Amino acid sequence: MRAIQVVGYHTDLKLNDIPEPKVEGPLDVIVRIGGAGVCRTDLHILEGQWAEKSGVALPYTIGHENAGWVEATGDAVTNVKPGDKVILHPLITCGLCRACRFGEDVHCENSQFPGIDTDGGYAEYLRTTARSVVRIDDSLEPADVAALADAGLTAYHAVRKAAAALRPGDVCVMIGAGGLGHIGIQVLKAISAATLVVVDRNPAAVELAVAIGADHGIVADGTQIAQVLELTGGRGAEAVVDFVGEGGATAEGVAMLRRAGNYYVVGYGENLDVPTIDIISTEINFVGNLVGSHTDLQELMVLAAQGKVTLHTSKYPLADFQQAIDDLGRGLVRGRAILIP
Amino acid sequence: MRAIQVVGYHTDLKLNDIPEPKVEGPLDVIVRIGGAGVCRTDLHILEGQWAEKSGVALPYTIGHENAGWVEATGDAVTNVKPGDKVILHPLITCGLCRACRFGEDVHCENSQFPGIDTDGGYAEYLRTTARSVVRIDDSLEPADVAALADAGLTAYHAVRKAAAALRPGDVCVMIGAGGLGHIGIQVLKAISAATLVVVDRNPAAVELAVAIGADHGIVADGTQIAQVLELTGGRGAEAVVDFVGEGGATAEGVAMLRRAGNYYVVGYGENLDVPTIDIISTEINFVGNLVGSHTDLQELMVLAAQGKVTLHTSKYPLADFQQAIDDLGRGLVRGRAILIP
Amino acid sequence: MRAIQVVGYHTDLKLNDIPEPKVEGPLDVIVRIGGAGVCRTDLHILEGQWAEKSGVALPYTIGHENAGWVEATGDAVTNVKPGDKVILHPLITCGLCRACRFGEDVHCENSQFPGIDTDGGYAEYLRTTARSVVRIDDSLEPADVAALADAGLTAYHAVRKAAAALRPGDVCVMIGAGGLGHIGIQVLKAISAATLVVVDRNPAAVELAVAIGADHGIVADGTQIAQVLELTGGRGAEAVVDFVGEGGATAEGVAMLRRAGNYYVVGYGENLDVPTIDIISTEINFVGNLVGSHTDLQELMVLAAQGKVTLHTSKYPLADFQQAIDDLGRGLVRGRAILIP
Amino acid sequence: MRAIQVVGYHTDLKLNDIPEPKVEGPLDVIVRIGGAGVCRTDLHILEGQWAEKSGVALPYTIGHENAGWVEATGDAVTNVKPGDKVILHPLITCGLCRACRFGEDVHCENSQFPGIDTDGGYAEYLRTTARSVVRIDDSLEPADVAALADAGLTAYHAVRKAAAALRPGDVCVMIGAGGLGHIGIQVLKAISAATLVVVDRNPAAVELAVAIGADHGIVADGTQIAQVLELTGGRGAEAVVDFVGEGGATAEGVAMLRRAGNYYVVGYGENLDVPTIDIISTEINFVGNLVGSHTDLQELMVLAAQGKVTLHTSKYPLADFQQAIDDLGRGLVRGRAILIP
Repeated sequence: MRAIQVVGYHTDLKLNDIPEPKVEGPLDVIVRIGGAGVCRTDLHILEGQWAEKSGVALPYTIGHENAGWVEATGDAVTNVKPGDKVILHPLITCGLCRACRFGEDVHCENSQFPGIDTDGGYAEYLRTTARSVVRIDDSLEPADVAALADAGLTAYHAVRKAAAALRPGDVCVMIGAGGLGHIGIQVLKAISAATLVVVDRNPAAVELAVAIGADHGIVADGTQIAQVLELTGGRGAEAVVDFVGEGGATAEGVAMLRRAGNYYVVGYGENLDVPTIDIISTEINFVGNLVGSHTDLQELMVLAAQGKVTLHTSKYPLADFQQAIDDLGRGLVRGRAILIP
Repeated sequence: MRAIQVVGYHTDLKLNDIPEPKVEGPLDVIVRIGGAGVCRTDLHILEGQWAEKSGVALPYTIGHENAGWVEATGDAVTNVKPGDKVILHPLITCGLCRACRFGEDVHCENSQFPGIDTDGGYAEYLRTTARSVVRIDDSLEPADVAALADAGLTAYHAVRKAAAALRPGDVCVMIGAGGLGHIGIQVLKAISAATLVVVDRNPAAVELAVAIGADHGIVADGTQIAQVLELTGGRGAEAVVDFVGEGGATAEGVAMLRRAGNYYVVGYGENLDVPTIDIISTEINFVGNLVGSHTDLQELMVLAAQGKVTLHTSKYPLADFQQAIDDLGRGLVRGRAILIP
Repeated sequence: MRAIQVVGYHTDLKLNDIPEPKVEGPLDVIVRIGGAGVCRTDLHILEGQWAEKSGVALPYTIGHENAGWVEATGDAVTNVKPGDKVILHPLITCGLCRACRFGEDVHCENSQFPGIDTDGGYAEYLRTTARSVVRIDDSLEPADVAALADAGLTAYHAVRKAAAALRPGDVCVMIGAGGLGHIGIQVLKAISAATLVVVDRNPAAVELAVAIGADHGIVADGTQIAQVLELTGGRGAEAVVDFVGEGGATAEGVAMLRRAGNYYVVGYGENLDVPTIDIISTEINFVGNLVGSHTDLQELMVLAAQGKVTLHTSKYPLADFQQAIDDLGRGLVRGRAILIP
Repeated sequence: MRAIQVVGYHTDLKLNDIPEPKVEGPLDVIVRIGGAGVCRTDLHILEGQWAEKSGVALPYTIGHENAGWVEATGDAVTNVKPGDKVILHPLITCGLCRACRFGEDVHCENSQFPGIDTDGGYAEYLRTTARSVVRIDDSLEPADVAALADAGLTAYHAVRKAAAALRPGDVCVMIGAGGLGHIGIQVLKAISAATLVVVDRNPAAVELAVAIGADHGIVADGTQIAQVLELTGGRGAEAVVDFVGEGGATAEGVAMLRRAGNYYVVGYGENLDVPTIDIISTEINFVGNLVGSHTDLQELMVLAAQGKVTLHTSKYPLADFQQAIDDLGRGLVRGRAILIP
């Protein structure tokens, strides 16, 4: 089959012809790829940033945001059958460690990460397991939801935590109205009545944020802290969800936070650097967020099927992978780029 | 009556003769002081560290860890009567703001703090309100529990949060086996079956920690991170309660933390400085802790009455306040220093 | 002032001229009534059903769903000032007992209930306290929201509990689309993405339920259990909120419940009568619900100000109280009847 | 191998010689039985009470409380290896349904129950899967903990839920100090500081309850409700854990419950029959409890290894199964009867 592979770092991806994956274990599931999201992480992989961390042997097939149709299943698979439309949780998990038993898949002690440390979805077929597939509604198409598998799932996971503590009248600030923020806005409005304030440096992104549901949009022009404080009677927001995590975002975000407020760290890059005296005197919390669990993905797919979460995508034939990568690198992709085999 | 007052910064406290406080409002409660804890914060007040923050007018009576007997009450007081033994929550709160309505007294928008910004308990009598008094069991003496009003309450508050997320087999590391840690150890063992590891630089403090219930004691000699990792199969602890918060404690504490673990910030001094990539890739949380609520204090007094939390005290007559202050400053107090009017 | 009073049981209410209430205590608030809801409980009071329970001395002023403008305040009132628009929490609470300290106002050990055991709001003025008033948004009129003070607050309280455990894809059945159900539907849709199924015997009520947001409406014609099971793949609903509680509703509701599901008891009349073997073998829970807390009322007023919860009302001049009572008794009121002084 | 089998209902068990189970699937685990608990449910099986419900084909091997040593494992088993000491969760679960993904094993949609609907542990070997085995500490012996696999796990599960809502000073009543109550008492004292009141009809059981940690023991002689109310200042207990569920226990238990209290249904037999008006006016909750999850069993094994939960057992050689069954039926077993192959 055709597969787009990493053949070296600091070099282009290559379309190789490799054997199709086969069912090997009783819980294996072979998925015919319907769409694979092209993500900034893919650029970082090519730059070698993940080389040591993943330890993956080259060449291997890249692509970690995948959806498609079940092609074949192992003997012990009971949750899907050939022909089912599915989205893939980014991790393959063991189901036996204590984290898995609690449903905290991302903390599995024995996980694999297709597209990162094993073959991913820039290909015609992918092998995963029964634990990683989530059936999607008939009304959804794999290529339309594939990018929710990782970026969308991370946003859902963080926003769900935030929403659980937010009541009507509470204010939630989201910093960053890009890919994750876009999903985060839709999720928060779907599952909560909190007042949502979105902050971004890009006026167009702020405008879009308001168009899809944000109650207030603030362009980060240096007055953003003051504006949030004014909107909240000087008290600050009950929650800040930070999809940026660099360029000074965390210091600004903390300044927007109310006493006893919660700060959700999602974006990353800089250090969180806060005096402990400030943490204790206002009794604020910082909550780390990694990608969501399998059950989170099931729930996000419900919101997608209900039309409450949508994603703008730009589709490319698999063979045009280089164009997709180049467009992403140059900031030319509107929404998310998706490869279609 | 006799009252020990701050008459200036960088100068000694002075014993003044001032009028006894009287009931002025219907919810006022006059307490005859049975014991007032001498706290390191009192030293900081004299150094002027709180001058600007509190804005208190001098002279005023110091002392914020108070217990005694109800002497008189306003017309609307229904929860105590003259003669009742009481301990005082450190804050006087309004009961009307949303924080108060949720029981989060320390976030009251209209609070006073006797001993910090209004007259405190280094005196024969103190005026507080019905909302601040907690009746204590007949078996307890005010002078024995006074120091639980602030330091003990802070430890209880943080440990109660930690215990809520800890299950049998989980490991909780406490950094610092001093005043707060001493209470924290007893509280955790009373309300949870988690395995408790105490880390302190002082071998004698570690020994005491084990004697009062810690499952493991570790002297912080440079191998403490390695020892915690070894005790936890290389995974780290589900919770770290940091009573130190300075001298590198936070960096060490974070290194002891397990994936998805919770870090409770109690002590303060240095900055919490952690790469956001580490926060999200391990999905750890940081939880701020201020002093506990009124209901926390009620619960701590239950543990005290049950003999599950005890405090070693060194008692001084009120007139010997200077000796108590000097002993504290020189590290000569065993347990907590208490002034007895 | 004019006040509509209970002068005896099994006899009509009477318009009496009585003295206006005055501020007596420092936390007292005098409210000029803008609207008072006429509730079925008022009919029950006249039938003597509450006589023994409340122990109220006759005559007294009836009316327990009240909103208006602050007319005067005691010295210690800091949360409202004359002229403020307010809605009244149904209870006057002490603020000192442990239930109050936790924000569980309805379990206050020293509460009064205006309109039930002390003078209520079928009058020009009412005396309450600072703890019972909730400021409402300028955009809201007292007469439009008064009926949310009790019936609406009860629905909000129960639905908020239900929503906290519901995730996208989960199904919530509401039994009864009358006054409380009407509010409950709007609240659930505002704060959750759960799928809402409303069951009622009245086809018009079911139609209205769907019009205001229910995802599915089912007329209770004997097939309602089967229809819920069919909608849920035979598994039943994750939550049932029962606003009826009589006429066999509980047995039907339990039959609609999924394993590990939660049953919220709000309406009452019959006994909940379930084999313990069924409770344990499916591990279901039953959750009691009384009227909401002060903070619940604040949040419900936020939803009202956001236009997410609205109420149809039929307004009557205070002097036409008998007409309002008669109309309610005969089922002729559309929405909620409100008396306007 | 030797196996004790059900060969018909209303007839004695029979020792048969049957083939040893073999690894068939990659997640299979063969356990050499070290001890199998003899439970009252086994008597009910012989009486045919489970015949229709389980649909099991006769003959089959009985025994659902099992512990032993891993004998062999399938290729995909990573959590145990031959020689490991293990206790078996009573269910074999799929790991793929949404209940399993949340860690709610007992609500698995595709589970098997060895000893009930497939071959159990009154035998030399048993086949289970990797998802059902919990490694136990080296200090524990399988025969000593086997009876914790079902009865003990149920008690742990219910008490853990209760403890999560109990604070120091709160009162928990346990009704029934038999097998489950015995474990429940030890668990509650290990994980909570709540005050524990145990009620039983048998004075000797009450005496034992106090000996192993109950703060108060009450013989149910008709004054038990009055005694609980007296102990709680007339208010009732914050929690009632009912291990009996028949003979009027639920009505008595509800009468012991405080406003806003939680009633944990564990034992069964009679109907829970409570007026809905009482449920809503006091806002009480009823919480169903089935056997615990896999993670509950891990935690209970931690408490056992720490010596915080112990069980008295009477051991019988496997060949003496009839004696064990007879002794249990006649009430002659002290503690739990265990068969040792």
